Amino acid sequence: MTKSKLKKSARTRQFIIEKAAPIFNKKGYSGTSMHDLTEATGLTKGGIYGNFENKDEIAAAAFEYNSQHILEQIKVSVLSQKSAKDKLLAITGFYRKYLYERKLSGGCPLLNTAVEADDMYPNLREMVLRSLDYIRRSFIYIINEGIKQGEFRKNIDPDYYATVFLGLIEGGIMQMKIYNKSRFLTDCLLQIEQLVEDLTW
Amino acid sequence: MTKSKLKKSARTRQFIIEKAAPIFNKKGYSGTSMHDLTEATGLTKGGIYGNFENKDEIAAAAFEYNSQHILEQIKVSVLSQKSAKDKLLAITGFYRKYLYERKLSGGCPLLNTAVEADDMYPNLREMVLRSLDYIRRSFIYIINEGIKQGEFRKNIDPDYYATVFLGLIEGGIMQMKIYNKSRFLTDCLLQIEQLVEDLTW
Repeated sequence: MTKSKLKKSARTRQFIIEKAAPIFNKKGYSGTSMHDLTEATGLTKGGIYGNFENKDEIAAAAFEYNSQHILEQIKVSVLSQKSAKDKLLAITGFYRKYLYERKLSGGCPLLNTAVEADDMYPNLREMVLRSLDYIRRSFIYIINEGIKQGEFRKNIDPDYYATVFLGLIEGGIMQMKIYNKSRFLTDCLLQIEQLVEDLTW
Repeated sequence: MTKSKLKKSARTRQFIIEKAAPIFNKKGYSGTSMHDLTEATGLTKGGIYGNFENKDEIAAAAFEYNSQHILEQIKVSVLSQKSAKDKLLAITGFYRKYLYERKLSGGCPLLNTAVEADDMYPNLREMVLRSLDYIRRSFIYIINEGIKQGEFRKNIDPDYYATVFLGLIEGGIMQMKIYNKSRFLTDCLLQIEQLVEDLTW
């Protein structure tokens, strides 16, 4: 392939991913049809399969796109803060902001894909695991830093709190989606903030 | 239809529901095919559609079967206790027991169906909402009783705690499923038990 053809192919690929990402997040992997993808992109089936091996490859790229967006935003929010406490609050702050910008349309891609992938699609499950683990490790790292710097109590189990924080985030999003009321997520975020307060002396 | 034919038809219907229930919970609504159902029941497509209008009706009956089982068990656990605190702990106790009996194969039907149904299937979404609300109202009722009887502090918001408890249960199950380690759920249940302790004077 010539250089300009390669560029055009990469652009088309990126275009398909951007159009497919919200559809996969809303309809799920099994629920998204080839028809949905041709309709959203305006491309033919052949045009899509010229850029991807199969539906698995499109789903994987769409999930990567959805989750990278979230992980990137969390990273930026955390890095803008200095103390461990403020870094933890930056993560709940990110979800509040995300919520009010109504960007959680279709819900959390990690939760959606986790539930569908766990029994059905081992490759997707592996990708969800990596993304979820990125957030978990961020929580653990920040809490450990807080303990080292004397900001948090020494007898804290960072792993335990990471599980509880992630549980409240995902369980809050699940309730918000099904009741269609943001209060369910904000209550769970409030509880995380309360627990962060308890980590300090 | 004669009485015995009606009985036979009801039995067949029940047989199909019992076979379909774990498949829908594992594969999801979109992921379950007619082939899965004929294979699991040993019936032909015609034999299944002789008892149900369409796949929607089978999915609804399967979800009802899965969720009723959980709600029934929670009710029994709660009714076996006297104090409000013990009633709340009976609910976390139910999830621990459920966990060790490895009955959460395929995960929590409420969580699974909630995530798939919220954007896609309004009827199923309505059924999930009803089941989730049953657990939520149980939490609220028990906490209100505890406040009235002077067991819990007066300045508690029962609705807030119901959201946090449900969030921890569902977020804990989600993590347990994706990491394939029960510790993630038990940590979230432990946090609920800690919060229940804080409700008392």
